Amino acid sequence: MIRDLTDAEARAALPCKWGAVPEGTVPAWVAEMDLAPPEPVTDAVAEAVRRGVAGYAPFGDGGIGAALAGFASRHWGWEVPPDAAVPTADVVSGIRLALEVLCPPGPVVVPLPCYPPFREVVALSGREPVWVRTDPDSPDAALDLAAVERALDAGARTVLLCNPHNPLGRVPRRGELEGLRDLAARYGARVVSDEIHGPLTLPGATFTPYLSVDPEGIAVTSVSKSFNTAGLHCAAVVALEADDRSRLWSVPTSQNHGYSPLGMIAATVAWTECDDWLASLVARLDDQRAVLSELLAEHLPLARTRPLEATYLAWLDLRAHGVDDPAAAALGHGVRLASGQLYEPGLAGHLRLNLATTPERLGLAVTRLAAALSP
Amino acid sequence: MIRDLTDAEARAALPCKWGAVPEGTVPAWVAEMDLAPPEPVTDAVAEAVRRGVAGYAPFGDGGIGAALAGFASRHWGWEVPPDAAVPTADVVSGIRLALEVLCPPGPVVVPLPCYPPFREVVALSGREPVWVRTDPDSPDAALDLAAVERALDAGARTVLLCNPHNPLGRVPRRGELEGLRDLAARYGARVVSDEIHGPLTLPGATFTPYLSVDPEGIAVTSVSKSFNTAGLHCAAVVALEADDRSRLWSVPTSQNHGYSPLGMIAATVAWTECDDWLASLVARLDDQRAVLSELLAEHLPLARTRPLEATYLAWLDLRAHGVDDPAAAALGHGVRLASGQLYEPGLAGHLRLNLATTPERLGLAVTRLAAALSP
Ligand SMILES: Cc1ncc(COP(=O)(O)O)c(C=O)c1O
Ligand SMILES: Cc1ncc(COP(=O)(O)O)c(C=O)c1O
Repeated sequence: MIRDLTDAEARAALPCKWGAVPEGTVPAWVAEMDLAPPEPVTDAVAEAVRRGVAGYAPFGDGGIGAALAGFASRHWGWEVPPDAAVPTADVVSGIRLALEVLCPPGPVVVPLPCYPPFREVVALSGREPVWVRTDPDSPDAALDLAAVERALDAGARTVLLCNPHNPLGRVPRRGELEGLRDLAARYGARVVSDEIHGPLTLPGATFTPYLSVDPEGIAVTSVSKSFNTAGLHCAAVVALEADDRSRLWSVPTSQNHGYSPLGMIAATVAWTECDDWLASLVARLDDQRAVLSELLAEHLPLARTRPLEATYLAWLDLRAHGVDDPAAAALGHGVRLASGQLYEPGLAGHLRLNLATTPERLGLAVTRLAAALSP
Repeated sequence: MIRDLTDAEARAALPCKWGAVPEGTVPAWVAEMDLAPPEPVTDAVAEAVRRGVAGYAPFGDGGIGAALAGFASRHWGWEVPPDAAVPTADVVSGIRLALEVLCPPGPVVVPLPCYPPFREVVALSGREPVWVRTDPDSPDAALDLAAVERALDAGARTVLLCNPHNPLGRVPRRGELEGLRDLAARYGARVVSDEIHGPLTLPGATFTPYLSVDPEGIAVTSVSKSFNTAGLHCAAVVALEADDRSRLWSVPTSQNHGYSPLGMIAATVAWTECDDWLASLVARLDDQRAVLSELLAEHLPLARTRPLEATYLAWLDLRAHGVDDPAAAALGHGVRLASGQLYEPGLAGHLRLNLATTPERLGLAVTRLAAALSP
């Protein structure tokens, strides 16, 4: 069911991920998968293009809210109303929109390490960030609620949650989210939860949609990571409060006009017709995480990892090798990885490895990284 | 060569324009054409989707700069370097980006009437607008350079030009642009020129790319209007100064990430392989403007218009009918037009009519409007 792309196919289909590396280098950096999106999605989009669909998006949500509601109910037992979703171009623009339109002024708590655009959108929204670090030696990398509370107590009014977490690959526990909700309520703060990786929760972990715990939260999600369609441009800001949604719907067009009718079609089809495909994908990622464990045990025994609970992005602690930026070292050995410093400036010795590829390429990635770090 | 869409096809292909009206109502409002995009464009995009192109856009400009350079040379004799274009999601986001990144702080001159998002992006960029009105009784609706100078003298530092002009349908003369350039130079101001309608200059008029007159100007353009692909999301900010371009290229990803690889393919194909199609389109629009003149002479002899020099958007002065908002009146009679008040708040008696459709639908639009205004 999953169709892997050959190098040549991947180079044509994924010009960002593959175009950034010379031939022969394995690209294991940006969060795209070396496989074709589900056929129902590409068929529907190509068919729409042939029918002439290339213009402005429809009024309303184009059906994405109902599609998301069905998906959330089937996969997570979460009953979200079909009118809870407001379309936007992508998750990052949705977070920016939520900050600009729904969040009170005041600093924004950003747990570190974080997906780098979190820092950018906080700056673009004209707000101060308050960093809450995750100690790399913390046993479970849980969100530091005491630090969040200190930040709220000092005036922060928004918390940017990444649920599941990129780059840590961790799924926040329900109790943790309840604790966050209680803090938000106590301090009149809002939580914006990026749930783009929710569908990529791997066997053994349980994803909790933040809004199922906190009806005043704001979720931003899309099919773009789990179905490999980041360039089609449609995401959803999900809000259970009617007042939030009417504020989102009434921004000037220019503030939220980047979603495409093709992206809306892709989202609708992915969330309604692709459960089997997604199950195959999750099985593949589950296999790949096992492959990665074996590869690390064999070639990089000093690497430290925590269990990968979700996403196809593994976070490796390579401090034992004493190299500041192992991703930079690896580039010279034929593999492009994402430096840990991108996710937490100043954090030495870490990197993020994208395992959404074939076992062969994953093997190359790890052995080349090992070669780069071998003394 | 031009393939008109039937009502049913148009309703499927253009969900914004057609989805906003009940069946039976002629949609002649938003700037989309009731015809299929060029086949080389839809073929290339559909083919790319089938190959799995659905991810992040490539680094660099994906070839759009070279394609634009060829197009500009062939059509306007304007030799723009192939590296002058920086991709962005659409023209409006490009104007916003230019304001945020390249324009000095200080108020922005916006000639009125204007394309409504001009007002929105000025507000989003945190700048004050300074309106320069076009007197509806002005003989030629030229840009009021004296008023622009007063605004610059009072502190404005950016001028938003619409070249050719939507909604006036007018092509600014070279001499006028030279006058604007001289003012900009004198006051240290920058001109941002929206040239999305340039390729839709009709026989009899001559389009002058603003940067061919003022190398310090900033142009924003795309294939989205002239090739009917607004939803594919790729436009170009064009700057001749290397320093401007490096500032644009170095914004944080989140500030300029909305362009899609499919839009880049569409832009490249449209600007390189579709000259014949564009020639047919311009011939069709030329015919339609003649049809409109006849229809107006017959059914709405009190309507005042100026020659439509470019675009497929006719600006009608219906003040003689004494109706504040003729578009609102027409809606009840089965045609959706764009109220003049959208382009200049408070301007009574005007509307914009989209003639990029079949002669039959144009006939319905005008006769229904006439019925709405008949006493
Ligand atoms: C946590 C997270 N949010 C958002 C995104 C990007 O989403 P989009 O392209 O829809 O903005 C990514 C991509 O890797 C991500 O990991
Ligand atoms: C003058 C002008 N600029 C920009 C646009 C919109 O362009 P885009 O959809 O690329 O933002 C239009 C659409 O009608 C327009 O008339």
